[in-house]
Amino acid sequence: MASDGTIRSFPAKRLEAFIGSALKAMGLPEADAAICAARMTESDLRGVDTHGIFRLPHYCQRIRAGGLNLRPNVHPVRENAVTALVDGDNAMGHVVLTYAMQLAIRKASEAGLAWVGTVNGNHAGCAAVYSTMPLAHDMIGMYMTVANGNHMAPWGGVELILGTNPISFAIPAGEEPPIALDIATTVSSYGKVKLAAQKGEAMPVGWMVDRKGQPLTDPKRSGEGLLLPIGGYKGYGLNVVIGMLAGVLNGAAFGRNVVDFTKDVAAKNNSGHMILAMRVDNFQPAASFKSEMDRVIREIRDSKRMDGVDRIWLPGEMEFHKTRERLERGIPLNPALVEQLRQLAKDLNIPDRLE
Amino acid sequence: MASDGTIRSFPAKRLEAFIGSALKAMGLPEADAAICAARMTESDLRGVDTHGIFRLPHYCQRIRAGGLNLRPNVHPVRENAVTALVDGDNAMGHVVLTYAMQLAIRKASEAGLAWVGTVNGNHAGCAAVYSTMPLAHDMIGMYMTVANGNHMAPWGGVELILGTNPISFAIPAGEEPPIALDIATTVSSYGKVKLAAQKGEAMPVGWMVDRKGQPLTDPKRSGEGLLLPIGGYKGYGLNVVIGMLAGVLNGAAFGRNVVDFTKDVAAKNNSGHMILAMRVDNFQPAASFKSEMDRVIREIRDSKRMDGVDRIWLPGEMEFHKTRERLERGIPLNPALVEQLRQLAKDLNIPDRLE
Repeated sequence: MASDGTIRSFPAKRLEAFIGSALKAMGLPEADAAICAARMTESDLRGVDTHGIFRLPHYCQRIRAGGLNLRPNVHPVRENAVTALVDGDNAMGHVVLTYAMQLAIRKASEAGLAWVGTVNGNHAGCAAVYSTMPLAHDMIGMYMTVANGNHMAPWGGVELILGTNPISFAIPAGEEPPIALDIATTVSSYGKVKLAAQKGEAMPVGWMVDRKGQPLTDPKRSGEGLLLPIGGYKGYGLNVVIGMLAGVLNGAAFGRNVVDFTKDVAAKNNSGHMILAMRVDNFQPAASFKSEMDRVIREIRDSKRMDGVDRIWLPGEMEFHKTRERLERGIPLNPALVEQLRQLAKDLNIPDRLE
Repeated sequence: MASDGTIRSFPAKRLEAFIGSALKAMGLPEADAAICAARMTESDLRGVDTHGIFRLPHYCQRIRAGGLNLRPNVHPVRENAVTALVDGDNAMGHVVLTYAMQLAIRKASEAGLAWVGTVNGNHAGCAAVYSTMPLAHDMIGMYMTVANGNHMAPWGGVELILGTNPISFAIPAGEEPPIALDIATTVSSYGKVKLAAQKGEAMPVGWMVDRKGQPLTDPKRSGEGLLLPIGGYKGYGLNVVIGMLAGVLNGAAFGRNVVDFTKDVAAKNNSGHMILAMRVDNFQPAASFKSEMDRVIREIRDSKRMDGVDRIWLPGEMEFHKTRERLERGIPLNPALVEQLRQLAKDLNIPDRLE
């Protein structure tokens, strides 16, 4: 059935199976394809549409160009009871990060706390998908990474040597949705700039400036502009720290040696990540902590609102509700993406699950 | 000699001795008084004038009102090889945090990594003074705390239940000054608002809004306003995460149970802190890491500048240079503060080192 221009929704399991077959057909081992499919679908379920199945055609393009290692040996090159440096061997980022987070959780289960860094990785999608993995073990999760492209300058500079470098934290709660913060350290992502350009809309003042520091609101001129960090010099500083902890510490790319993975699909990215997992019962019994978290979450949500504001949200709460909604009603995909994916299915000779 | 209205500078060692004698005269054990004096002077040396000797009269006021425990038993109440919960027993925050960071460094020396939380603490001054303590051991430092007063609302709210909750990171370098980021998660501190009011200056748009969400630029009306988080909902989320990790996890104050320590000098604050120390040689030899840090720092500093910008600064670099300058030329104090301190010396019957 051809697209009729309306947005259709698909069951998460069907999209996950689609991604899995596509990546397997591209040459990934079945287990790795399944890991990528699970992480990408989790991103779509959370409502982070820019980091889910939307990326599949681009990942396939990178695989075709030889930009990714399909038979990687992901393994720790340095390790002790509470830290590890994991060599991603240029695998799909989702495979590297799932391995690294599972390793961190295993170490933290035994020792209470673990910090794992990755080198030779790739784009791994949505940060919160990984930072929330420790929650099921009554652990706090943390995640930092160097973005795969530079659209920001140092504070006072004009050279694009910094990315949107995101940071993510997840904290367990009891009956309430867990806290899951996932933020870029720039006011806007570059994806939102490109979206505004597509829609022909102006950008708000504060997203970008031109090379003279003047506000830039025409997204078609974004090539001349610089993304702005959150809080000016403060976000710039946080951005640099993330780059050093996720990149430099692990021997991964940061600064001029970052590859723009959308422009150069064949080059090795050497993406770096920092992840941390810690058992909350190092500090108090998990049950008492989670019930105290519920109390604090409710205190914030129930506090007095500004006129016209319907609800105060906690970090990750919207994504929690979105996941429930999309598990029930399916994941909406726009017609252009559906067409692109069906073409991919045809090219790869895999079942067209989106007809 | 009476004040003649000009700003005078004093050798750091003299101010440190002054603070030490004052706190000893207030009843602190000599060792604790010396720790507070050292940390407060380090803050002044860094140029963080709001967190150094400037706070001494207020701390003395709190001690007089019975708000602080002068004979505390600061000790871990839960502990394993890589984590500890330190009960500050309502001691001066500087004493609690120095103990906690030394414990974290000791644990990280042996295990590679440590996370220490504190409960029943107090205002400890400048965050970077603590986060930088691990640097001398070739370790990365991290610090979060819940501010001692609430001047911000949740995103979309109007109730003042959040503070400026700062976060700090320190990362060793080689020949270059180490990275030392120390930022509040609000665009402006409340101290800067009060300073603008004193000077009769308007605040920039973006520091505060009124309870209808409209920009508030008259600092005399700050009582009606809300500080804004960096990056809008992003900084709000980071602020809440810091409150949960430094406060809730440790059983310390966060949200409505935060005491405004300037308004209520007698109440127990139950300040909480989160600190972390990690050896860089978990990931690579310290020498290679530090030389790579130098390379990245220079790449950022030497990148192309915006017209009219003299220099690109790395996080903590200004404070590093300020420390060198003030070690050489002394720490400048304004006449009103000098008068206040000399009066304190008279009241406490300690040598007037500021004449």
